[in-house]
Amino acid sequence: MADALDASDALNALILALQKLPGVGAKSASRMAYHLLQHDRAAARQLALALSQASERMHHCQWCHTFTEQGICSTCADPQRDRSLLCVVETPADQAAMERTGVYRGLYFVLLGKLSPLSGIGPSDIGIERLLQRLASEHGQAVQELVVATSFTAEGEATAHVIGQLLKGRGLRITRLSRGVPIGSELEFVDLGTIAHAFADRR
Amino acid sequence: MADALDASDALNALILALQKLPGVGAKSASRMAYHLLQHDRAAARQLALALSQASERMHHCQWCHTFTEQGICSTCADPQRDRSLLCVVETPADQAAMERTGVYRGLYFVLLGKLSPLSGIGPSDIGIERLLQRLASEHGQAVQELVVATSFTAEGEATAHVIGQLLKGRGLRITRLSRGVPIGSELEFVDLGTIAHAFADRR
Repeated sequence: MADALDASDALNALILALQKLPGVGAKSASRMAYHLLQHDRAAARQLALALSQASERMHHCQWCHTFTEQGICSTCADPQRDRSLLCVVETPADQAAMERTGVYRGLYFVLLGKLSPLSGIGPSDIGIERLLQRLASEHGQAVQELVVATSFTAEGEATAHVIGQLLKGRGLRITRLSRGVPIGSELEFVDLGTIAHAFADRR
Repeated sequence: MADALDASDALNALILALQKLPGVGAKSASRMAYHLLQHDRAAARQLALALSQASERMHHCQWCHTFTEQGICSTCADPQRDRSLLCVVETPADQAAMERTGVYRGLYFVLLGKLSPLSGIGPSDIGIERLLQRLASEHGQAVQELVVATSFTAEGEATAHVIGQLLKGRGLRITRLSRGVPIGSELEFVDLGTIAHAFADRR
Protein backbone atom coordinates (compact mmCIF):
# COMPACT_ATOMS: atom_id res chain seq x y z
CA MET A 1 0.00 0.00 0.00
CA ALA A 2 2.45 2.60 1.24
CA ASP A 3 4.64 2.03 -1.81
CA ALA A 4 2.29 4.26 -3.79
CA LEU A 5 3.32 6.98 -1.38
CA ASP A 6 6.55 8.06 0.13
CA ALA A 7 7.69 4.45 0.39
CA SER A 8 9.77 4.93 3.47
CA ASP A 9 11.65 1.76 4.17
CA ALA A 10 11.31 1.90 7.94
CA LEU A 11 7.52 2.25 7.76
CA ASN A 12 7.07 -0.49 5.16
CA ALA A 13 9.40 -2.78 7.07
CA LEU A 14 7.28 -2.26 10.19
CA ILE A 15 4.00 -2.94 8.33
CA LEU A 16 5.45 -6.15 6.86
CA ALA A 17 6.84 -7.30 10.22
CA LEU A 18 3.48 -6.73 11.95
CA GLN A 19 1.81 -8.99 9.38
CA LYS A 20 3.78 -11.90 10.80
CA LEU A 21 1.57 -11.73 13.90
CA PRO A 22 -1.27 -14.28 13.80
CA GLY A 23 -4.56 -12.72 12.75
CA VAL A 24 -2.98 -9.51 11.45
CA GLY A 25 -3.44 -8.72 7.75
CA ALA A 26 -2.20 -5.82 5.65
CA LYS A 27 -4.92 -3.41 6.78
CA SER A 28 -4.56 -4.10 10.52
CA ALA A 29 -0.78 -3.93 10.20
CA SER A 30 -0.99 -0.46 8.58
CA ARG A 31 -3.41 0.69 11.25
CA MET A 32 -1.12 -0.58 14.02
CA ALA A 33 1.97 0.99 12.48
CA TYR A 34 0.34 4.39 12.01
CA HIS A 35 -1.15 4.25 15.50
CA LEU A 36 2.23 3.52 17.10
CA LEU A 37 4.03 6.22 15.10
CA GLN A 38 1.34 8.83 15.58
CA HIS A 39 0.22 8.24 19.16
CA ASP A 40 2.49 5.89 21.05
CA ARG A 41 6.16 5.68 20.16
CA ALA A 42 6.88 4.74 23.77
CA ALA A 43 4.71 1.63 23.29
CA ALA A 44 6.58 0.82 20.07
CA ARG A 45 9.93 0.99 21.85
CA GLN A 46 8.59 -1.02 24.80
CA LEU A 47 7.23 -3.71 22.46
CA ALA A 48 10.57 -3.85 20.63
CA LEU A 49 12.35 -4.45 23.93
CA ALA A 50 9.80 -7.04 25.12
CA LEU A 51 10.11 -8.96 21.84
CA SER A 52 13.91 -9.02 22.02
CA GLN A 53 13.99 -10.08 25.64
CA ALA A 54 11.32 -12.76 25.31
CA SER A 55 12.98 -14.22 22.18
CA GLU A 56 16.26 -14.38 23.99
CA ARG A 57 15.22 -15.53 27.44
CA MET A 58 12.21 -17.82 27.09
CA HIS A 59 12.99 -21.53 26.86
CA HIS A 60 10.96 -24.67 27.29
CA CYS A 61 10.70 -26.19 30.77
CA GLN A 62 12.67 -29.44 30.68
CA TRP A 63 9.83 -31.27 32.39
CA CYS A 64 6.50 -29.88 31.23
CA HIS A 65 7.65 -28.04 28.10
CA THR A 66 5.85 -24.79 28.89
CA PHE A 67 7.71 -21.50 28.43
CA THR A 68 9.96 -20.45 31.28
CA GLU A 69 13.11 -18.44 31.89
CA GLN A 70 14.45 -21.20 34.15
CA GLY A 71 15.50 -24.74 33.27
CA ILE A 72 12.53 -26.14 35.20
CA CYS A 73 9.41 -23.96 35.56
CA SER A 74 8.14 -22.93 38.99
CA THR A 75 5.12 -25.27 38.80
CA CYS A 76 7.27 -28.34 38.10
CA ALA A 77 9.79 -27.26 40.73
CA ASP A 78 7.09 -26.79 43.41
CA PRO A 79 7.56 -29.57 46.03
CA GLN A 80 3.90 -29.15 47.15
CA ARG A 81 2.63 -30.53 43.84
CA ASP A 82 1.21 -34.06 43.65
CA ARG A 83 3.64 -35.93 41.40
CA SER A 84 1.29 -38.86 40.83
CA LEU A 85 -1.01 -36.70 38.66
CA LEU A 86 -0.04 -35.37 35.26
CA CYS A 87 -2.45 -33.16 33.30
CA VAL A 88 -1.88 -32.93 29.54
CA VAL A 89 -3.00 -29.61 28.03
CA GLU A 90 -2.64 -28.09 24.59
CA THR A 91 -1.37 -24.63 25.50
CA PRO A 92 -0.05 -22.56 28.41
CA ALA A 93 -3.38 -20.69 28.28
CA ASP A 94 -5.25 -23.96 28.90
CA GLN A 95 -2.85 -24.68 31.76
CA ALA A 96 -3.62 -21.24 33.20
CA ALA A 97 -7.39 -21.92 33.01
CA MET A 98 -6.91 -25.22 34.84
CA GLU A 99 -4.77 -23.51 37.49
CA ARG A 100 -7.37 -20.81 38.07
CA THR A 101 -9.92 -23.43 39.13
CA GLY A 102 -7.74 -24.11 42.18
CA VAL A 103 -8.82 -27.77 42.30
CA TYR A 104 -5.84 -29.33 40.54
CA ARG A 105 -2.64 -29.86 42.50
CA GLY A 106 -0.76 -32.21 40.17
CA LEU A 107 1.82 -31.43 37.50
CA TYR A 108 1.32 -30.57 33.85
CA PHE A 109 2.56 -31.45 30.43
CA VAL A 110 2.02 -28.78 27.75
CA LEU A 111 1.81 -30.17 24.22
CA LEU A 112 2.06 -26.72 22.61
CA GLY A 113 -0.18 -27.88 19.79
CA LYS A 114 -2.75 -30.42 18.78
CA LEU A 115 -3.01 -32.94 16.00
CA SER A 116 -4.38 -31.37 12.85
CA PRO A 117 -4.05 -33.67 9.84
CA LEU A 118 -5.65 -31.02 7.62
CA SER A 119 -2.87 -28.57 8.46
CA GLY A 120 -0.24 -31.31 8.22
CA ILE A 121 0.36 -31.41 11.98
CA GLY A 122 1.03 -35.02 13.02
CA PRO A 123 2.06 -36.64 16.32
CA SER A 124 5.72 -35.81 15.75
CA ASP A 125 5.00 -32.07 15.38
CA ILE A 126 3.48 -31.72 18.83
CA GLY A 127 4.88 -32.78 22.16
CA ILE A 128 3.61 -36.38 22.27
CA GLU A 129 7.09 -37.87 21.92
CA ARG A 130 8.41 -35.64 24.68
CA LEU A 131 5.44 -36.73 26.81
CA LEU A 132 6.50 -40.36 26.37
CA GLN A 133 10.08 -39.42 27.27
CA ARG A 134 8.85 -37.56 30.33
CA LEU A 135 6.86 -40.60 31.51
CA ALA A 136 9.88 -42.85 30.90
CA SER A 137 12.25 -40.53 32.80
CA GLU A 138 12.92 -40.64 36.53
CA HIS A 139 10.53 -37.68 37.03
CA GLY A 140 7.79 -39.58 35.23
CA GLN A 141 8.00 -42.76 37.32
CA ALA A 142 5.75 -41.30 40.01
CA VAL A 143 2.86 -40.60 37.60
CA GLN A 144 -0.17 -42.81 38.25
CA GLU A 145 -2.88 -40.88 36.48
CA LEU A 146 -2.76 -38.95 33.23
CA VAL A 147 -5.58 -36.39 32.93
CA VAL A 148 -5.85 -35.70 29.20
CA ALA A 149 -7.33 -32.19 29.17
CA THR A 150 -7.09 -31.49 25.43
CA SER A 151 -10.04 -29.61 23.88
CA PHE A 152 -13.32 -31.27 23.03
CA THR A 153 -12.84 -30.46 19.36
CA ALA A 154 -12.17 -32.97 16.60
CA GLU A 155 -8.45 -32.18 16.83
CA GLY A 156 -8.31 -32.27 20.62
CA GLU A 157 -10.21 -35.56 20.69
CA ALA A 158 -7.86 -37.05 18.08
CA THR A 159 -4.89 -35.93 20.16
CA ALA A 160 -6.40 -37.54 23.27
CA HIS A 161 -7.10 -40.72 21.32
CA VAL A 162 -3.51 -40.99 20.06
CA ILE A 163 -2.14 -40.40 23.56
CA GLY A 164 -4.49 -43.06 24.93
CA GLN A 165 -3.38 -45.55 22.28
CA LEU A 166 0.32 -44.92 22.82
CA LEU A 167 0.10 -45.34 26.59
CA LYS A 168 -2.22 -48.34 26.69
CA GLY A 169 -1.01 -51.24 28.81
CA ARG A 170 1.47 -49.26 30.92
CA GLY A 171 -0.60 -49.48 34.09
CA LEU A 172 -1.40 -45.75 33.95
CA ARG A 173 -4.91 -44.52 34.69
CA ILE A 174 -5.85 -42.31 31.72
CA THR A 175 -8.79 -39.94 32.18
CA ARG A 176 -10.49 -37.09 30.30
CA LEU A 177 -12.33 -34.10 31.78
CA SER A 178 -16.07 -34.75 31.87
CA ARG A 179 -18.16 -33.38 29.05
CA GLY A 180 -21.48 -31.77 29.80
CA VAL A 181 -23.65 -28.71 30.10
CA PRO A 182 -21.63 -25.67 31.29
CA ILE A 183 -22.59 -24.29 34.68
CA GLY A 184 -24.90 -21.28 34.43
CA SER A 185 -26.15 -22.09 30.94
CA GLU A 186 -29.75 -22.64 29.94
CA LEU A 187 -30.36 -25.91 28.13
CA GLU A 188 -32.11 -24.05 25.32
CA PHE A 189 -28.85 -22.37 24.30
CA VAL A 190 -26.51 -25.36 24.68
CA ASP A 191 -25.50 -27.09 21.46
CA LEU A 192 -27.14 -30.44 20.78
CA GLY A 193 -23.91 -32.47 20.78
CA THR A 194 -23.16 -31.28 24.30
CA ILE A 195 -26.67 -32.13 25.51
CA ALA A 196 -26.41 -35.59 23.93
CA HIS A 197 -23.07 -36.17 25.67
CA ALA A 198 -24.41 -34.86 28.98
CA PHE A 199 -27.34 -37.27 28.65
CA ALA A 200 -25.07 -40.23 27.86
CA ASP A 201 -22.72 -39.37 30.76
CA ARG A 202 -25.58 -38.61 33.20
CA ARG A 203 -25.03 -39.55 36.81
CA MET B 1 -3.51 -14.88 32.91
CA ALA B 2 0.02 -16.20 32.84
CA ASP B 3 0.54 -15.04 36.41
CA ALA B 4 -1.29 -18.15 37.61
CA LEU B 5 1.53 -20.10 35.99
CA ASP B 6 5.23 -19.76 35.83
CA ALA B 7 4.92 -15.99 35.72
CA SER B 8 7.98 -15.43 33.61
CA ASP B 9 8.64 -11.74 33.43
CA ALA B 10 9.78 -11.70 29.82
CA LEU B 11 6.63 -13.48 28.62
CA ASN B 12 4.26 -11.34 30.67
CA ALA B 13 6.06 -8.20 29.58
CA LEU B 14 5.60 -9.25 25.96
CA ILE B 15 1.89 -10.02 26.43
CA LEU B 16 1.34 -6.63 28.08
CA ALA B 17 3.31 -4.78 25.40
CA LEU B 18 1.31 -6.46 22.60
CA GLN B 19 -1.91 -5.21 24.21
CA LYS B 20 -0.84 -1.66 23.39
CA LEU B 21 -1.50 -2.43 19.72
CA PRO B 22 -4.93 -1.17 18.57
CA GLY B 23 -7.53 -3.95 18.49
CA VAL B 24 -5.41 -6.39 20.49
CA GLY B 25 -6.86 -7.59 23.81
CA ALA B 26 -5.47 -9.94 26.44
CA LYS B 27 -6.43 -13.11 24.58
CA SER B 28 -5.04 -12.08 21.20
CA ALA B 29 -1.88 -10.81 22.89
CA SER B 30 -1.30 -14.20 24.57
CA ARG B 31 -1.94 -15.99 21.32
CA MET B 32 0.51 -13.73 19.48
CA ALA B 33 3.19 -14.11 22.15
CA TYR B 34 2.92 -17.91 22.25
CA HIS B 35 2.89 -18.08 18.47
CA LEU B 36 6.07 -16.01 18.15
CA LEU B 37 7.89 -17.94 20.87
CA GLN B 38 6.79 -21.33 19.64
CA HIS B 39 6.91 -20.94 15.88
CA ASP B 40 8.64 -17.78 14.78
CA ARG B 41 11.34 -16.23 16.91
CA ALA B 42 12.91 -14.82 13.76
CA ALA B 43 9.71 -12.83 13.17
CA ALA B 44 9.81 -11.61 16.78
CA ARG B 45 13.36 -10.32 16.35
CA GLN B 46 12.53 -8.79 12.99
CA LEU B 47 9.50 -7.01 14.45
CA ALA B 48 11.61 -5.73 17.36
CA LEU B 49 14.10 -4.25 14.91
CA ALA B 50 11.38 -2.75 12.68
CA LEU B 51 9.71 -1.11 15.68
CA SER B 52 12.97 0.41 16.89
CA GLN B 53 13.96 1.68 13.48
CA ALA B 54 10.53 3.11 12.63
CA SER B 55 10.24 4.85 16.03
CA GLU B 56 13.62 6.40 15.53
CA ARG B 57 13.57 7.31 11.85
CA MET B 58 10.01 8.25 10.91
CA HIS B 59 9.17 11.92 11.14
CA HIS B 60 6.39 14.10 9.76
CA CYS B 61 6.86 15.67 6.35
CA GLN B 62 7.25 19.41 6.91
CA TRP B 63 4.76 20.17 4.15
CA CYS B 64 2.05 17.51 4.12
CA HIS B 65 2.60 16.01 7.57
CA THR B 66 2.60 12.38 6.42
CA PHE B 67 5.27 10.03 7.75
CA THR B 68 8.62 10.15 6.03
CA GLU B 69 12.29 9.55 6.75
CA GLN B 70 13.16 12.78 4.93
CA GLY B 71 12.39 16.36 5.88
CA ILE B 72 10.04 16.70 2.89
CA CYS B 73 8.36 13.54 1.57
CA SER B 74 8.94 12.38 -2.00
CA THR B 75 5.40 13.36 -3.08
CA CYS B 76 5.79 16.94 -1.87
CA ALA B 77 9.30 17.11 -3.34
CA ASP B 78 8.16 15.87 -6.77
CA PRO B 79 8.44 18.81 -9.23
CA GLN B 80 5.90 17.11 -11.56
CA ARG B 81 3.08 17.65 -9.08
CA ASP B 82 0.46 20.33 -9.65
CA ARG B 83 1.00 22.81 -6.81
CA SER B 84 -2.34 24.56 -7.35
CA LEU B 85 -4.25 21.52 -6.03
CA LEU B 86 -4.15 20.40 -2.40
CA CYS B 87 -6.06 17.28 -1.32
CA VAL B 88 -6.83 17.01 2.40
CA VAL B 89 -7.06 13.39 3.64
CA GLU B 90 -7.43 11.87 7.09
CA THR B 91 -4.69 9.22 6.94
CA PRO B 92 -1.72 8.06 4.85
CA ALA B 93 -3.88 5.04 3.90
CA ASP B 94 -6.49 7.40 2.41
CA GLN B 95 -3.69 9.19 0.58
CA ALA B 96 -2.50 5.85 -0.82
CA ALA B 97 -6.03 5.02 -2.04
CA MET B 98 -6.22 8.39 -3.80
CA GLU B 99 -2.78 7.84 -5.36
CA ARG B 100 -3.74 4.41 -6.66
CA THR B 101 -6.53 5.92 -8.75
CA GLY B 102 -3.83 7.62 -10.83
CA VAL B 103 -6.12 10.58 -11.60
CA TYR B 104 -4.81 13.02 -9.00
CA ARG B 105 -1.59 14.90 -9.70
CA GLY B 106 -1.73 17.58 -7.02
CA LEU B 107 -0.24 17.65 -3.52
CA TYR B 108 -1.66 16.37 -0.26
CA PHE B 109 -2.20 17.39 3.30
CA VAL B 110 -2.59 14.53 5.78
CA LEU B 111 -4.58 15.45 8.88
CA LEU B 112 -3.65 12.24 10.73
CA GLY B 113 -7.01 12.23 12.45
CA LYS B 114 -10.54 13.49 12.25
CA LEU B 115 -12.76 15.47 14.56
CA SER B 116 -14.45 13.24 17.09
CA PRO B 117 -16.14 15.25 19.84
CA LEU B 118 -17.31 12.01 21.50
CA SER B 119 -13.70 10.89 21.89
CA GLY B 120 -12.62 14.38 22.89
CA ILE B 121 -10.76 15.03 19.62
CA GLY B 122 -11.22 18.68 18.66
CA PRO B 123 -9.77 20.84 15.85
CA SER B 124 -6.54 21.43 17.78
CA ASP B 125 -5.84 17.69 18.11
CA ILE B 126 -5.74 17.07 14.39
CA GLY B 127 -3.74 18.83 11.74
CA ILE B 128 -6.15 21.67 10.92
CA GLU B 129 -3.90 24.36 12.39
CA ARG B 130 -0.93 23.02 10.47
CA LEU B 131 -3.09 23.06 7.35
CA LEU B 132 -3.73 26.79 7.88
CA GLN B 133 0.00 27.37 8.41
CA ARG B 134 0.75 25.41 5.24
CA LEU B 135 -1.66 27.55 3.23
CA ALA B 136 -0.17 30.73 4.71
CA SER B 137 3.41 29.64 3.99
CA GLU B 138 5.29 30.31 0.76
CA HIS B 139 4.58 26.71 -0.37
CA GLY B 140 0.87 27.27 0.18
CA GLN B 141 0.61 30.43 -1.92
CA ALA B 142 0.21 28.44 -5.13
CA VAL B 143 -2.85 26.51 -3.91
CA GLN B 144 -6.02 27.45 -5.77
CA GLU B 145 -8.25 24.47 -4.97
CA LEU B 146 -8.57 22.49 -1.78
CA VAL B 147 -10.09 19.03 -2.35
CA VAL B 148 -11.40 17.99 1.07
CA ALA B 149 -11.33 14.18 0.81
CA THR B 150 -12.22 13.34 4.41
CA SER B 151 -14.55 10.35 4.93
CA PHE B 152 -18.29 10.55 4.39
CA THR B 153 -18.91 9.72 8.04
CA ALA B 154 -20.30 12.06 10.69
CA GLU B 155 -16.74 12.78 11.87
CA GLY B 156 -15.28 13.19 8.39
CA GLU B 157 -18.14 15.51 7.40
CA ALA B 158 -17.67 17.57 10.57
CA THR B 159 -13.96 17.85 9.79
CA ALA B 160 -14.74 18.99 6.25
CA HIS B 161 -17.26 21.51 7.57
CA VAL B 162 -14.78 23.02 10.03
CA ILE B 163 -12.11 23.29 7.33
CA GLY B 164 -14.64 24.95 5.01
CA GLN B 165 -15.61 27.46 7.68
CA LEU B 166 -12.03 28.34 8.58
CA LEU B 167 -11.01 28.93 4.98
CA LYS B 168 -14.09 30.83 3.84
CA GLY B 169 -13.42 34.10 2.08
CA ARG B 170 -9.79 33.41 1.17
CA GLY B 171 -10.47 33.08 -2.52
CA LEU B 172 -9.78 29.34 -2.45
CA ARG B 173 -12.00 26.90 -4.32
CA ILE B 174 -13.03 24.29 -1.75
CA THR B 175 -14.45 21.00 -3.08
CA ARG B 176 -15.48 17.59 -1.74
CA LEU B 177 -15.35 14.25 -3.58
CA SER B 178 -18.75 13.40 -5.06
CA ARG B 179 -21.02 11.11 -3.11
CA GLY B 180 -22.97 8.40 -4.89
CA VAL B 181 -23.51 4.78 -5.75
CA PRO B 182 -20.18 2.88 -5.89
CA ILE B 183 -19.23 1.51 -9.31
CA GLY B 184 -20.11 -2.18 -9.67
CA SER B 185 -22.72 -2.20 -6.93
CA GLU B 186 -26.37 -3.18 -7.34
CA LEU B 187 -28.80 -0.58 -6.12
CA GLU B 188 -30.57 -3.17 -3.99
CA PHE B 189 -27.49 -3.52 -1.76
CA VAL B 190 -26.54 0.16 -1.49
CA ASP B 191 -27.52 1.89 1.75
CA LEU B 192 -30.46 4.27 1.53
CA GLY B 193 -28.53 7.38 2.56
CA THR B 194 -26.15 6.86 -0.36
CA ILE B 195 -29.03 6.38 -2.80
CA ALA B 196 -30.73 9.53 -1.49
CA HIS B 197 -27.50 11.52 -1.95
CA ALA B 198 -26.95 10.05 -5.41
CA PHE B 199 -30.49 11.12 -6.34
CA ALA B 200 -30.00 14.65 -4.99
CA ASP B 201 -26.64 15.00 -6.79
CA ARG B 202 -27.92 13.40 -10.02
CA ARG B 203 -26.52 14.82 -13.28
